Amino acid sequence: MPRTLPDGFLYGVCYYPEHWDASRHASDIQRIAAAGFEYIRIGEGAWGYFEPVEGQYRFDLFDNVLNLCRKHGLKVIFGTPTYCGPAWIARNYPEVLRYNFQRIPMEHGSRRNYNYTSPKYIELSDKICTALAEHYRREKQIFAWQLDNEFNCHMDVSYAPSDEAAFRIWLQEKYGTIEKLNKAWGTAFWSQQYNDWSQILLPHPTAAHPNPSHLLDESRFISDMVCRFARRQADILRKANPKWLITHNHLFANVDGPKLVHDGGLDFFSHDQYPLFTGEGNWTDYAHGLHVARSLSFPYAVMEQQSGPGGQLSYLHRTPRQGQQRLFTWQSIAHGAKALSYFRWRTCPYGAEQHWHGLIDQDDRDSRRLAEAKTVGSEIARLPKALWDAPVARAVAVMRDYDNDVNDTRINTYIPDGRWELGRWIGEFAGRQIPTDIVWPSSNLKGYKILILPHLKIVDKALVEKVTAFAQAGGVVVLGAQSGLKDRNCHIVEAVLPGLWRKVAGVEVEDWTMLDGKTRPVKLGGDRNFTLSLFAERLKPTRGTEVLATWDTDDTLLAGAPAITRAKVGKGSIIYVGGYCPSEATDTLADELMEMAGLSSLVDATPRVEAISRDSGKHKYLFLMNHSTKPEQVRGLPEKCKELLTAQKVAGGTLTLPAYGVAIVES
Amino acid sequence: MPRTLPDGFLYGVCYYPEHWDASRHASDIQRIAAAGFEYIRIGEGAWGYFEPVEGQYRFDLFDNVLNLCRKHGLKVIFGTPTYCGPAWIARNYPEVLRYNFQRIPMEHGSRRNYNYTSPKYIELSDKICTALAEHYRREKQIFAWQLDNEFNCHMDVSYAPSDEAAFRIWLQEKYGTIEKLNKAWGTAFWSQQYNDWSQILLPHPTAAHPNPSHLLDESRFISDMVCRFARRQADILRKANPKWLITHNHLFANVDGPKLVHDGGLDFFSHDQYPLFTGEGNWTDYAHGLHVARSLSFPYAVMEQQSGPGGQLSYLHRTPRQGQQRLFTWQSIAHGAKALSYFRWRTCPYGAEQHWHGLIDQDDRDSRRLAEAKTVGSEIARLPKALWDAPVARAVAVMRDYDNDVNDTRINTYIPDGRWELGRWIGEFAGRQIPTDIVWPSSNLKGYKILILPHLKIVDKALVEKVTAFAQAGGVVVLGAQSGLKDRNCHIVEAVLPGLWRKVAGVEVEDWTMLDGKTRPVKLGGDRNFTLSLFAERLKPTRGTEVLATWDTDDTLLAGAPAITRAKVGKGSIIYVGGYCPSEATDTLADELMEMAGLSSLVDATPRVEAISRDSGKHKYLFLMNHSTKPEQVRGLPEKCKELLTAQKVAGGTLTLPAYGVAIVES
Amino acid sequence: MPRTLPDGFLYGVCYYPEHWDASRHASDIQRIAAAGFEYIRIGEGAWGYFEPVEGQYRFDLFDNVLNLCRKHGLKVIFGTPTYCGPAWIARNYPEVLRYNFQRIPMEHGSRRNYNYTSPKYIELSDKICTALAEHYRREKQIFAWQLDNEFNCHMDVSYAPSDEAAFRIWLQEKYGTIEKLNKAWGTAFWSQQYNDWSQILLPHPTAAHPNPSHLLDESRFISDMVCRFARRQADILRKANPKWLITHNHLFANVDGPKLVHDGGLDFFSHDQYPLFTGEGNWTDYAHGLHVARSLSFPYAVMEQQSGPGGQLSYLHRTPRQGQQRLFTWQSIAHGAKALSYFRWRTCPYGAEQHWHGLIDQDDRDSRRLAEAKTVGSEIARLPKALWDAPVARAVAVMRDYDNDVNDTRINTYIPDGRWELGRWIGEFAGRQIPTDIVWPSSNLKGYKILILPHLKIVDKALVEKVTAFAQAGGVVVLGAQSGLKDRNCHIVEAVLPGLWRKVAGVEVEDWTMLDGKTRPVKLGGDRNFTLSLFAERLKPTRGTEVLATWDTDDTLLAGAPAITRAKVGKGSIIYVGGYCPSEATDTLADELMEMAGLSSLVDATPRVEAISRDSGKHKYLFLMNHSTKPEQVRGLPEKCKELLTAQKVAGGTLTLPAYGVAIVES
Repeated sequence: MPRTLPDGFLYGVCYYPEHWDASRHASDIQRIAAAGFEYIRIGEGAWGYFEPVEGQYRFDLFDNVLNLCRKHGLKVIFGTPTYCGPAWIARNYPEVLRYNFQRIPMEHGSRRNYNYTSPKYIELSDKICTALAEHYRREKQIFAWQLDNEFNCHMDVSYAPSDEAAFRIWLQEKYGTIEKLNKAWGTAFWSQQYNDWSQILLPHPTAAHPNPSHLLDESRFISDMVCRFARRQADILRKANPKWLITHNHLFANVDGPKLVHDGGLDFFSHDQYPLFTGEGNWTDYAHGLHVARSLSFPYAVMEQQSGPGGQLSYLHRTPRQGQQRLFTWQSIAHGAKALSYFRWRTCPYGAEQHWHGLIDQDDRDSRRLAEAKTVGSEIARLPKALWDAPVARAVAVMRDYDNDVNDTRINTYIPDGRWELGRWIGEFAGRQIPTDIVWPSSNLKGYKILILPHLKIVDKALVEKVTAFAQAGGVVVLGAQSGLKDRNCHIVEAVLPGLWRKVAGVEVEDWTMLDGKTRPVKLGGDRNFTLSLFAERLKPTRGTEVLATWDTDDTLLAGAPAITRAKVGKGSIIYVGGYCPSEATDTLADELMEMAGLSSLVDATPRVEAISRDSGKHKYLFLMNHSTKPEQVRGLPEKCKELLTAQKVAGGTLTLPAYGVAIVES
Repeated sequence: MPRTLPDGFLYGVCYYPEHWDASRHASDIQRIAAAGFEYIRIGEGAWGYFEPVEGQYRFDLFDNVLNLCRKHGLKVIFGTPTYCGPAWIARNYPEVLRYNFQRIPMEHGSRRNYNYTSPKYIELSDKICTALAEHYRREKQIFAWQLDNEFNCHMDVSYAPSDEAAFRIWLQEKYGTIEKLNKAWGTAFWSQQYNDWSQILLPHPTAAHPNPSHLLDESRFISDMVCRFARRQADILRKANPKWLITHNHLFANVDGPKLVHDGGLDFFSHDQYPLFTGEGNWTDYAHGLHVARSLSFPYAVMEQQSGPGGQLSYLHRTPRQGQQRLFTWQSIAHGAKALSYFRWRTCPYGAEQHWHGLIDQDDRDSRRLAEAKTVGSEIARLPKALWDAPVARAVAVMRDYDNDVNDTRINTYIPDGRWELGRWIGEFAGRQIPTDIVWPSSNLKGYKILILPHLKIVDKALVEKVTAFAQAGGVVVLGAQSGLKDRNCHIVEAVLPGLWRKVAGVEVEDWTMLDGKTRPVKLGGDRNFTLSLFAERLKPTRGTEVLATWDTDDTLLAGAPAITRAKVGKGSIIYVGGYCPSEATDTLADELMEMAGLSSLVDATPRVEAISRDSGKHKYLFLMNHSTKPEQVRGLPEKCKELLTAQKVAGGTLTLPAYGVAIVES
Repeated sequence: MPRTLPDGFLYGVCYYPEHWDASRHASDIQRIAAAGFEYIRIGEGAWGYFEPVEGQYRFDLFDNVLNLCRKHGLKVIFGTPTYCGPAWIARNYPEVLRYNFQRIPMEHGSRRNYNYTSPKYIELSDKICTALAEHYRREKQIFAWQLDNEFNCHMDVSYAPSDEAAFRIWLQEKYGTIEKLNKAWGTAFWSQQYNDWSQILLPHPTAAHPNPSHLLDESRFISDMVCRFARRQADILRKANPKWLITHNHLFANVDGPKLVHDGGLDFFSHDQYPLFTGEGNWTDYAHGLHVARSLSFPYAVMEQQSGPGGQLSYLHRTPRQGQQRLFTWQSIAHGAKALSYFRWRTCPYGAEQHWHGLIDQDDRDSRRLAEAKTVGSEIARLPKALWDAPVARAVAVMRDYDNDVNDTRINTYIPDGRWELGRWIGEFAGRQIPTDIVWPSSNLKGYKILILPHLKIVDKALVEKVTAFAQAGGVVVLGAQSGLKDRNCHIVEAVLPGLWRKVAGVEVEDWTMLDGKTRPVKLGGDRNFTLSLFAERLKPTRGTEVLATWDTDDTLLAGAPAITRAKVGKGSIIYVGGYCPSEATDTLADELMEMAGLSSLVDATPRVEAISRDSGKHKYLFLMNHSTKPEQVRGLPEKCKELLTAQKVAGGTLTLPAYGVAIVES
């Protein structure tokens, strides 16, 4: 039996007993249950309550709340409280502090002020987790634990002395000999040779640019330390009660997602969904994190679902409009959540998140936002159980890779806009109501028709072989400019570009240039013109590779040369795009790729409508969501089908979604 | 007898004997007296002269200058030199240094490099002040002392070890028990609980946002340390010569103005008036600091009046044009100065202010700027003595509050533009030639017709009661969005908003949203449309409150709801504006408020003319100032009146001001 | 015999044996020689190879490469490797590290992480230089040494404890007594007096602006430390082999160019030419560094000539287009290079410059860029030897001065754009095909007709006398606003402005103002109108000085007053421009000045054509370079002349340059 979320859907809310006078707990829990919630998420911020003085534990407040939950039939996800703790930790053990790049310790007075490597902090983490695990080992209401909270949120690096010591050990384990490290890092350049492990620092302020391989290993090290820290907590909890499920919420920078799930010992991944961080974003931006979540585990949980305007001292989101919170919630569910809890029940009157608004405000009145949450709760309750485990349909996959994320954001940052292309591809297909996923090199590619690797500079043989096999089996692969530029040491390959892709993609890069923020036009087939941007390559097809588009410019470096090529590979093909794709390029190419792959839209609707198709084997469930403030018509639905929220049959394959409306069509 | 500035007006200039060879003093003092000046301001930068070696004092240079002053009938304001001192202080006692937020000591080599809390610096301050006080206790030319110079200029925080120690003591005195502090700061959020005073730091670099209550207490602490430091010097000086008047110049951030005057032991407040810091500002910007000065003491002194282009290494003001320096001077006087000294006599050839230009330049020639100063001196001399103590007329008051200043600038900074609204209200009324003042919660509100509290988030019962009483007595009160959001602990109130204002303002905030830099239109009465900005509230009137304006938008959160309301309160009313006011809003509302309060302009003129009315009981004095480069006509003057500078009768109630012209009309 | 570059031209490439497996050296050296190169530049980054463990040296790799060079007839420029070294240096001797302004040591892991003052680093530098010098003292292939590499590149300050100690000694040597320092620095301002040398720090974070004189002395000190460090290496090398030539490459901030050449003990100056750092710059921007190089030594070497897109982690240049690398190379040569080496042979696959592209890429294929380099090599070989020492023609000189560079970039930064005027003047004349040079106060002014001192605020008597003599002998001198404002202590002069220029320029500054980013129009002669910017002066001519232009504005400070004047001085004149010159001003004034000085263009061509004229005594050589992507016609060539690259006679004084084309016309 897989260790994952239990049958059915779990609907919940985050609740913080420690923020409120004990006299309010009974009424709060009663109201939470009455609103239709099935679980509360609790505990991750309460170390200061649990252990006010080192070694002295108390649990009464939480025991009482758990009793109230029992009374009202609420389940509980409990958090280990190690992302923030009381002042005595920092004062008694300053070595546990997180240090910034300038080697200034990040002090008590906020959160996330600990490193993951100091033996003392690991010991303190062990102790509090053990104390909680032992105390609650027989507590039936708790079905899952969240490890810590949002690893690497706010600050995704640390340069404490213990981090440096741990880095050296990590390097020793990885490389074995200092000679191998010198080679892997290319220390012959600028005379950076090391004689001894003790000479190695974490990256540090330097007079000029740092060593790329050093940076890449730092990010891998950080991720491994996060996973090690997580796993240690997971092991303590599982030892106490093997039935407990283990999760962690959200993926931040310098954490390798697939590794976190696997090495961190998670049973399922949780995501924190705050669409309003994208400002006036469109729905494909809102959905981005849900794509990430689904790529890491299906089903996933949404541990924190935005329930109002979020804000800290320096920013405050706009307020979700009437119906929009419900829409956001359904979006989270449609993409694959099987549990979802709002953040949070009631806004805290004090602290750095006094502007992080919950379902109800400090005034404690029932609010419009609470009413919407109740609506969703009652809707969920009406839906068939089979829906929650029904897989999401597959068609297009866009690949991310941890090393490449690191390379693009921390190392080769000369094209900072380049990394947004991944989101543009997803938006382009999702906006056409085509099932679209994020995948990783380790993902199962079964079911996809199109696989896009936007600009993975770092590749290895295994990845090239896997992608080649995908193409040979009939898939359409898209490689972007600079693909295959580097190896896993972050060295540029000593080979004709695109390096490991060269043979299979049937193309060579003859010359290339940065475009200094400009674009260059290409001509695709007959009359379709668009531009590529940022970086442009002059391609040379080999072994009969087809030229799909040529550079249509008087720039002598490019003029008339192939810009996009297609090589046949088995039953499929590999398309190579010799530039970065702005919106007009992804727009045109998405149509072209759909045609090549024989894909068609799930429904006939404007790009303002999101469609997610799931198939339980017995039924198909089509989630339809209108992200605009006006009604939208959806055509092309199955002739015989039913809308589940309204329990109405759909006539003539057509349905109208009201503003911010949601429909679930069963067929 | 009140301890304030002596009878009549005092006209002066800042002079720095220590910057010039002693051979030039006699000629300089002679020229200063000949130019019509009555006092010099002296000494605040000369610690290096007074105490070149620790404990070894010398005063000869200054004794000589004081003798020259005696000879030429010049009075003296002497400054204690503690805002900067010789290198031996920093080297012998590094604990006295000011530390920045990153805990780097600010070193010798500039100014303001000391903290206010180190016992050693307090001792050194005591000693130099005592030495000066003792040496000059019988010196008749000195009538006043300036304490230190521009507290908190350039740098308004300090994180030295002594600051942290003093903060802990300050907190102990304030809270008594650590439990009370934990409650007041809301440390239950993010597990920030303290066990012991020794665990508390001043704010420090942290991984995420800090605690708002912690920041607010920090700013109160800083202000208290400034006042304590000031008071200690005041006490030393008063003990030496009880007749001496005590002042300090300018109000910078992290100093609570009313507290500085009261707790710091000042007899009158001084202001440093540099209009050109506002660049191409309009005259209401120029006047802003004068409003602040008058709110703190009437009369006040202008200790430093801009006498040329000011500049330091990284900036240089434009040069006041022909007549503009005179106009700036008259503006300072009209608002309530009874003493005014230009900064400075002659520009220093060296040091960080070698581009801070005085009345004459390094070339020592009589300049246009000196000639203008002479003109003003001779004009002052012709005016009636009664004028200088004649109070400024009152009509509109706009309230500032220290806690709210801190909250808006250091804590809740998510609407950084919001705090400029105070200046817009002042500009709106002053530009209509309506008497306008800044007031504080402690101010006497007698005489005002309109009281505006732009967006005071933090309020307490006493303030609400005081403002309610003002309305009940017939006043018109304006509250802006977010009023009453917080209590004095910086917690958000656990009550329906606008919290303590809710009952008396007869309104509830049903919903609200940030506007993300956008605006939303409202419709006021018949055809007057304008927009509110930044933050919008959906209001719900209670107990018959009148709706003045509604939201005229299809934004579903606001559409059709009340945006501005007016509740009758006794003989007056409280108006609640559910948004922030850009210029078009203050423009429309100012007219509306004038009508409600039955206010009319002092004169009939364009907004380019400033008018200040003062009433000695026997006569009314109307200062008229033309801030434009073209002549301006002023109508609506009393039928029978006299212009004092020209000693001409004014015919037909009309007068024409030349470019940059000034008139003082007596009636 | 002067110690300078040998007869003829030397064509080379930078090569880094330590970056490649030894098995590739033979083939690389063979290919380098076959491509037409005559020398390689080598060694400056290889300390990690030479001394992997402290005191243990090895040279085999380089001995082998030198043997290969001998075999293929390649000469060698060897670099001392002190700009970067292995990790043991930083770990064993942390006192050698460069510190940033916040006093954080810049660590190992990049380059340029050493200070120039720590006794330990000087000792380590002595040892490695001595070891290299001793080992290679009889090596015939080596004809020159490069000291270190790019002093002050990336980071031009250091605040290590040893820097502070050295600064105190430097000050003691300069001033002798602390009283003299106090006077020179103007420490009476803000009580900054020092009692003792030990109290002096290098500039440090302070609460407000620092002391200008302190900053100026810091920059002079840094430059002197660079020169001292360089000289020490030069002495070691010369002692080992007096025939070796000594050079250093590039001039960065905080190095006084003429002093580096003289005090640093260089035989010739080298420049690193990367035109693409100017982005889409025009050719006068590309040429700027070449003007600097020629001002420091003629002939000079180009040690690093851009051979492809350069890039580090955060940026990447565009790729030179077909023919453009050749054009860049010829530009370097035309301006006066007698040796030139491309940076670099092949791109390094790893390290911070893995995107710094050489003639060939990591794929090792012969490239278009290599082909262009071969073309230039064969062209050079065809040219007459007399050409390489033929001086560049002189006409216009624009003066730079180290103190003024420092003052404008680090001290008085209130007009940051002001310093670009130097480049605009050069561009204006060079774009008219007029010979134009940068000169320094120490330069020989013989041969110039026009001398422009854009805005030298700091001047001394010697400079004024030298420039006056130039005018008296018939030269046209141009002084810009603020000329003569300061003395060499960085004090503002206590004299009527323009200070030391006042008498000879026959003009006084009556008033002035900053323009706050605005401009003001002037009228020159009949109908020529243009604007001056940034800073405007109201001039007053004395002793019959002619008014060339007046302020044509209603700004009362300027209206109708003289803006530009011309005083006759002997056979020449001094023109004073009372403002800063935007392009339209330099454009109009350049024409005016040409007429005054009787200058005419070398050829008749558009500004897209660059012309450099050189005269061997026997022949004139005119380099013509077309920097546009279209053909350009050049007229006005001598009736009887020959184009050397094509070995064709030029008919009718007219020649057409193809896109990016180059011609060398002999007459």
